[in-house]
Amino acid sequence: MDRKNAFYAQSGGVTAVINASACGVIETARRHADKIGKVYAGRNGIVGALTEDLIDTSQESDVAIAALRHTPGAAFGSCRYKLKGLEENRAEYQRLIEVFRAHHIGYFFYNGGNDSADTCHKISQLSRTMGFPIQAIHIPKTVDNDLPVTDCCPGFGSAAKYVALSTLEASLDVASMSATSTKVFVFEVMGRHAGWIASAGALASTPERPLPIVILFPEIPFDQRKFLAKVKTLVERQGHCSVVVSEGVRNPEGKFLADAGYTDAFGHTQLGGVAPVVARMIYNELGFRTHWAVADYLQRSARHVASRTDADHAYAVGRAAVELALAGENALMVTIERVSDDPYRWRVGSAPLERIANVEKKMPETFIGADGFGITEACRRYLSPLIGGEDYPPYAGGLPCYVRLQNRPVPKLLDTPFHP
Amino acid sequence: MDRKNAFYAQSGGVTAVINASACGVIETARRHADKIGKVYAGRNGIVGALTEDLIDTSQESDVAIAALRHTPGAAFGSCRYKLKGLEENRAEYQRLIEVFRAHHIGYFFYNGGNDSADTCHKISQLSRTMGFPIQAIHIPKTVDNDLPVTDCCPGFGSAAKYVALSTLEASLDVASMSATSTKVFVFEVMGRHAGWIASAGALASTPERPLPIVILFPEIPFDQRKFLAKVKTLVERQGHCSVVVSEGVRNPEGKFLADAGYTDAFGHTQLGGVAPVVARMIYNELGFRTHWAVADYLQRSARHVASRTDADHAYAVGRAAVELALAGENALMVTIERVSDDPYRWRVGSAPLERIANVEKKMPETFIGADGFGITEACRRYLSPLIGGEDYPPYAGGLPCYVRLQNRPVPKLLDTPFHP
Repeated sequence: MDRKNAFYAQSGGVTAVINASACGVIETARRHADKIGKVYAGRNGIVGALTEDLIDTSQESDVAIAALRHTPGAAFGSCRYKLKGLEENRAEYQRLIEVFRAHHIGYFFYNGGNDSADTCHKISQLSRTMGFPIQAIHIPKTVDNDLPVTDCCPGFGSAAKYVALSTLEASLDVASMSATSTKVFVFEVMGRHAGWIASAGALASTPERPLPIVILFPEIPFDQRKFLAKVKTLVERQGHCSVVVSEGVRNPEGKFLADAGYTDAFGHTQLGGVAPVVARMIYNELGFRTHWAVADYLQRSARHVASRTDADHAYAVGRAAVELALAGENALMVTIERVSDDPYRWRVGSAPLERIANVEKKMPETFIGADGFGITEACRRYLSPLIGGEDYPPYAGGLPCYVRLQNRPVPKLLDTPFHP
Repeated sequence: MDRKNAFYAQSGGVTAVINASACGVIETARRHADKIGKVYAGRNGIVGALTEDLIDTSQESDVAIAALRHTPGAAFGSCRYKLKGLEENRAEYQRLIEVFRAHHIGYFFYNGGNDSADTCHKISQLSRTMGFPIQAIHIPKTVDNDLPVTDCCPGFGSAAKYVALSTLEASLDVASMSATSTKVFVFEVMGRHAGWIASAGALASTPERPLPIVILFPEIPFDQRKFLAKVKTLVERQGHCSVVVSEGVRNPEGKFLADAGYTDAFGHTQLGGVAPVVARMIYNELGFRTHWAVADYLQRSARHVASRTDADHAYAVGRAAVELALAGENALMVTIERVSDDPYRWRVGSAPLERIANVEKKMPETFIGADGFGITEACRRYLSPLIGGEDYPPYAGGLPCYVRLQNRPVPKLLDTPFHP
């Protein structure tokens, strides 16, 4: 038979809905069993391809694959591993081709963010650079919402919903306590260079239910005097306020407010702990009691409160990736195109990977309010539909029924180990 | 007319379901309009009584009161304010009587934890000590689950569900990342002296879906060497683990691992930041990459994922408080009595306040596993039903429809201000 198999892998930080994309890929491939053989998943992303550690998804039942749609984390394992350029590490590419050839793989689906788009782009060029025929389609995923061209990134909407919801709930809490105790709640969220996630905190305040909320964006250099004046005014007028602070906030000298002093596997600075820095500053300078929280993984894993829009997007980009490949396409990323804000309408599109890889989309200036501490109406119009709709997982015994796949290995065909 | 009015107030840290108790009180009082006049809520707890700052709940529609059942925070404002003893501050009691007499208040419902039970107990004695007839019933509420006699405390079940769920979701995240990046997730939860909330993290692991989870209880002095050995073993065997750490964990010398150096309005040490301490310890000593989160207010405000059992308890204790008062009772706390674990059955009971006030219920030794890092089957049987069932709030525009009451003041009848 000449049906090619497909390789699918998950990369980078996970999201609440990355497995919904996996579900879209696998279910769509199963519907086209005449054209696509098996879907092999890389165990731990591209590392699974390099080490010939492939998972045979055909061993999973339709029910188990369907349950991926409501399961957070990366069902096949993710990785932080960026392929070097062809000139720098030809051996890696030779190895990938060796594995792909051995397992009759002709389709490459990579589910990730900026770094992963770069990897996917390099794979998409193997036909030209190394003479190995493969079609590579990138499936966008990142809570950071910083991929270019696409209107939004699957994963972001659910993180945004979690942050908006948590800011709302914590704001009701601090409002309750403020007369005799805590007056300021500080909430640290992700977003190293772009304030997309932090901006969602502002959605907790609406015209019908206004709440005093201050957003600290990484795009705006932190001005301590101006910030403290803002907090002081809000507390004096309304009794309390909430501060949503992006982990990536920097002082005017460009230094992160909280720098834990070590780097991750990509060499990015590992951040954390800006919330206690800001909380202590408020207490010391203004004398207001504070509480602080750090969402960390919770915001990108909170499938229990995923946005239905986001889950739909995530499934759709997985499905579209397979359909594009079957249509003969290569070197594309699937995109989400917005047709209208209200009512929200969208469709799937695509963009060449060379326009995507390593490009980071920051918040437009028109989305950040004049004082630098809030969002504009344009930003609210952009964000609102992305957190829209609920999509609850099934529960048993008080907890969501998240699926754990069997993840059975594909028998190895090569006798050469490889150490990436 | 000789129908007495009722006073209701919320005290201490809020919970996801304290307003469900308010709902139970007000709806039940409305059903007994022949015996109870109006329900006046204290603005910011007992402080509202002292300052004659009363809220007229009769101005709120039935729909608004019903919506309290799914709204977190304290709808009338809470407080951290503990009445002194009668001998120490007779003026406060005289003032309360003055306000209660002016507003024809004969029923006192106080919704809080240990400190509030003490306040409620003092009020319940006013008839005996000061000759003012009033019936005081305490409505239990605390995420800490540390009130004695009652099987559990309304508010705890939802916090426990949030912690179990968040630990599950974050564990799937760290499992996904562990091959090439983060191997340990550290999650800080509340619980100053009792490990009830932390223990709920262990529910994320089940026989069908085992997960490596380490619990750090405040009841067990922190043993760094033993803890690091445990983490090392889990990571070596399973690739990753999650650590759920109670804010109240202390070293063998009795000092909190993270002591922010200032105290709250009750003089309790203000804690926070044990997660980064533990995460840094793991990174420095074992070299494992870590991520950490601090739940803080989120765990006690997460009405979006409340336990239905907990919400039912909270409503029931509010209703029962009114019914007990109408039956002529005084100086009681409403309790939850467990009839059976599985299927879970419960009923409402009551206990004399003198058995409750200022008594703190810690985790029984039989609930903490032999190595001090987990829970026993007995603990699991106790906890499981408390997180059972979902009770979603209605949503609009992607966010829960939490109600904001009008909170119209009752016209003041006294011309003397009071400064508590």
